[in-house]
Amino acid sequence: MTAFIALGCVTLTEDVKVLAINASPRKYGNTYKLLKVAVRAAEESGGKVDVIHLYDYDLKPCKGCISDDEEACRPPCLMEDDAWEVLKKVRDSDAMIVATPIYWYGPPGHLKTLIDKMTVFENMAVVEGRSWVEGKVAGFIAAGGDSGEILTIAYLMVVFNSMGFLIPPWALAYYTGLGDALERQDRVLDAANVGLAVVRAVKEVRVKEWYEPHLLEKLGGGELINSVRNEADELREKTWEEREHLLRKMRSTDFRKFRQ
Amino acid sequence: MTAFIALGCVTLTEDVKVLAINASPRKYGNTYKLLKVAVRAAEESGGKVDVIHLYDYDLKPCKGCISDDEEACRPPCLMEDDAWEVLKKVRDSDAMIVATPIYWYGPPGHLKTLIDKMTVFENMAVVEGRSWVEGKVAGFIAAGGDSGEILTIAYLMVVFNSMGFLIPPWALAYYTGLGDALERQDRVLDAANVGLAVVRAVKEVRVKEWYEPHLLEKLGGGELINSVRNEADELREKTWEEREHLLRKMRSTDFRKFRQ
Amino acid sequence: MTAFIALGCVTLTEDVKVLAINASPRKYGNTYKLLKVAVRAAEESGGKVDVIHLYDYDLKPCKGCISDDEEACRPPCLMEDDAWEVLKKVRDSDAMIVATPIYWYGPPGHLKTLIDKMTVFENMAVVEGRSWVEGKVAGFIAAGGDSGEILTIAYLMVVFNSMGFLIPPWALAYYTGLGDALERQDRVLDAANVGLAVVRAVKEVRVKEWYEPHLLEKLGGGELINSVRNEADELREKTWEEREHLLRKMRSTDFRKFRQ
Amino acid sequence: MTAFIALGCVTLTEDVKVLAINASPRKYGNTYKLLKVAVRAAEESGGKVDVIHLYDYDLKPCKGCISDDEEACRPPCLMEDDAWEVLKKVRDSDAMIVATPIYWYGPPGHLKTLIDKMTVFENMAVVEGRSWVEGKVAGFIAAGGDSGEILTIAYLMVVFNSMGFLIPPWALAYYTGLGDALERQDRVLDAANVGLAVVRAVKEVRVKEWYEPHLLEKLGGGELINSVRNEADELREKTWEEREHLLRKMRSTDFRKFRQ
Repeated sequence: MTAFIALGCVTLTEDVKVLAINASPRKYGNTYKLLKVAVRAAEESGGKVDVIHLYDYDLKPCKGCISDDEEACRPPCLMEDDAWEVLKKVRDSDAMIVATPIYWYGPPGHLKTLIDKMTVFENMAVVEGRSWVEGKVAGFIAAGGDSGEILTIAYLMVVFNSMGFLIPPWALAYYTGLGDALERQDRVLDAANVGLAVVRAVKEVRVKEWYEPHLLEKLGGGELINSVRNEADELREKTWEEREHLLRKMRSTDFRKFRQ
Repeated sequence: MTAFIALGCVTLTEDVKVLAINASPRKYGNTYKLLKVAVRAAEESGGKVDVIHLYDYDLKPCKGCISDDEEACRPPCLMEDDAWEVLKKVRDSDAMIVATPIYWYGPPGHLKTLIDKMTVFENMAVVEGRSWVEGKVAGFIAAGGDSGEILTIAYLMVVFNSMGFLIPPWALAYYTGLGDALERQDRVLDAANVGLAVVRAVKEVRVKEWYEPHLLEKLGGGELINSVRNEADELREKTWEEREHLLRKMRSTDFRKFRQ
Repeated sequence: MTAFIALGCVTLTEDVKVLAINASPRKYGNTYKLLKVAVRAAEESGGKVDVIHLYDYDLKPCKGCISDDEEACRPPCLMEDDAWEVLKKVRDSDAMIVATPIYWYGPPGHLKTLIDKMTVFENMAVVEGRSWVEGKVAGFIAAGGDSGEILTIAYLMVVFNSMGFLIPPWALAYYTGLGDALERQDRVLDAANVGLAVVRAVKEVRVKEWYEPHLLEKLGGGELINSVRNEADELREKTWEEREHLLRKMRSTDFRKFRQ
Repeated sequence: MTAFIALGCVTLTEDVKVLAINASPRKYGNTYKLLKVAVRAAEESGGKVDVIHLYDYDLKPCKGCISDDEEACRPPCLMEDDAWEVLKKVRDSDAMIVATPIYWYGPPGHLKTLIDKMTVFENMAVVEGRSWVEGKVAGFIAAGGDSGEILTIAYLMVVFNSMGFLIPPWALAYYTGLGDALERQDRVLDAANVGLAVVRAVKEVRVKEWYEPHLLEKLGGGELINSVRNEADELREKTWEEREHLLRKMRSTDFRKFRQ
């Protein structure tokens, strides 16, 4: 636990490393445009940004090794493709900005495959006790012709958070429609703020190890669990009479009378 | 116990105020139990926690004033109910732990109504330029008999983040099944870590204002937009030949031959 | 008008009963407008439509009786509110058109509370072996100022389908924006088609009982399960060598070399 | 429109063609096992089922031609891969059973890529006025080690429905955990019912063309829209006084008093 305490006093002289992923096959579309706005904001905020077009990389589908052998999934994924080239960049970044086109209300298969393969990092929680992407920061941009932006972003958020990423306030920007996203000033501003937020969050948050595997012991272990259980039992007792009354009334209802 | 909450050179003398919401009508169920574990962890990490049972409060449904008059929605919501009592606690907290039962793969209507009414805070971004909940921290717990925990939590994440909340790493814990959640040590540990994470994030992150409404101007305004557009245009030109070739080939396909 | 609703040799003399729910507190907004278009289409297709404004009804939050006593949840819900008045209409309908405003990317708490209470019907699968809403048909409309339409509708779809509703093709229509939805002809057309689709589906589908609780026995019971297991085992054996090779290679990777 | 009327009297002597997709790289895992149960039920109900392992096919990522040229996306996708081999099977089927492993709360990238490419069929609505998959039937199975089954299935439902698929009642089955799905009788029964439901729905529903592109004209066109608008305006007038009162009260609230 001391590691992050030591870090607490560190003066951040190093650049904040940001990996910006354009997950659209079009290098010039709205996804890229909004991403580029975010990148500029990230740079102006002290980020050193690496922008990649994900479609420049060949990614073979994830084979789900983890389902057969929980410890087999580890860096680097051995598929014969370019995955490790991208994954290395993920590993070396402090923050990611994931910009995705909206294909059927979600990220395209190609980006999903990268996400599937990021399991090599998250699964280090199993292999050696800690996710390699824990404490990194993520922000999200989605652009598409019609709809599905929130489903796309909600999905990305819960996934990245489950891998250990921190999600700063307002970490989302989107545009849907057939025009030029750069003409929607509000959306452009949102995108810029995604870039700002991820850099700012890296600067603010010097804790890198968040999950405390021994927290239960520190909290008293079985004693904690017992005391919570006891308290719940007491609450149950206190509230049960009223609740039981309701349940009994409900259960004894002759639903047949309400059939039509 | 204090060791793991030491924060390097930062002296934080004020308590971290945490609002812990049990959104289950049962005061003694798995939702509450996991919440209580998170609460203990939050307390041990320096949080001062206020636990409420949401069903103790009468909440009338949100009337969506915002749709008729964008500036009408502001604190306090004027409905004649107990909403403001809860909303006040939201306003006064640094962090929230939202523990919800899973009703049809989502939060119950009662919690959703609270969320609907939290618009009074978020809408201050419109009324006076800044959300009142910006920079607060949120963590989530979901418990239910069968399934839907991730849809529930993904939903809560994207909503709270869109209101301005920061979501720390591993800000989710869940249990599904008919047993006692306290017997699933992994889930209990996850819940404890939610409590730890929200307090830690408040301590770490002293920025409260994240969204920068004048960021575009700071980045050069129209100039920024033009340069991004130009760059995208150049990329388009560079990649267009290959792409146009594909498009032309695609478009000229006689799909009738593939009809059956 | 009658031409397109002719149904071949099927004589359907009874009206198709459709319950159209406006879940917006505004009786005149985009949600209602699109709903009304769907209603007209449903009527022209032979539907007898009952339109209700959900906000006219007082709904108390669901108390989740089911979590304490699986058989307690049954018609009518005993809360002292207007729920049964609405639920009766659900029971008596062949199809529902659920039109919802988008509040934080989902249905408002008020509609969610109705959905929570529809459990009285679905739970009859537990109480007497069959959901009371099985085989009914549902279509969805969502309207809002900004975004979240697909998350809203995806959510409603999976919930209604899990209760036993059939979802006909193209059972969704939406509008987001600050204008008048009636000016977006494509969205209006989608809404009309929702109305047509639900009536058409009721006319087409005369099966009302879909779930076959004794299907396993009919398929051979344990024998079926064994034969599937055996086949899977055979497939495992056939493919295992290659897979094991991969797993072994993966597992023996010295991930430390890839740490940075 | 006469096509489906003619079909109305047809005696179904032909088999119901079902395409069953195992989207797991493991040919022997829980995804496959539950799929196989569904397949048996489908066969017993009169289905002629084609089972494929999606990982046997090489799928290159979708290039999103549609974003540059709406009419370029059409069958067959010209990428040099095996997509058309699978897409042909989709085209030739009456129903699909999509069985997916749960990778990060969603389908793996490989399945998502297939879905992305199914756009060639759906986009025929643009190219020649009707989706080639309209009126087909879909059911869903998801299996995974931990969680995310409902998010996965909700996602698949809204996508397939948006392409024109009908979703019969109870079209979902899932298993999460590390054991053998075949030991959970309730999940196995659900899976079997997915197989039954898709075949039954094909048999029941002889309408293949659902979306009526000229429905607005049939409903009166501008007249319909005007009458809906007028009615909404009347409702607005009737309810406005009360609502305006609320809005005025809300808007005039001095929120500063509620700041802390």
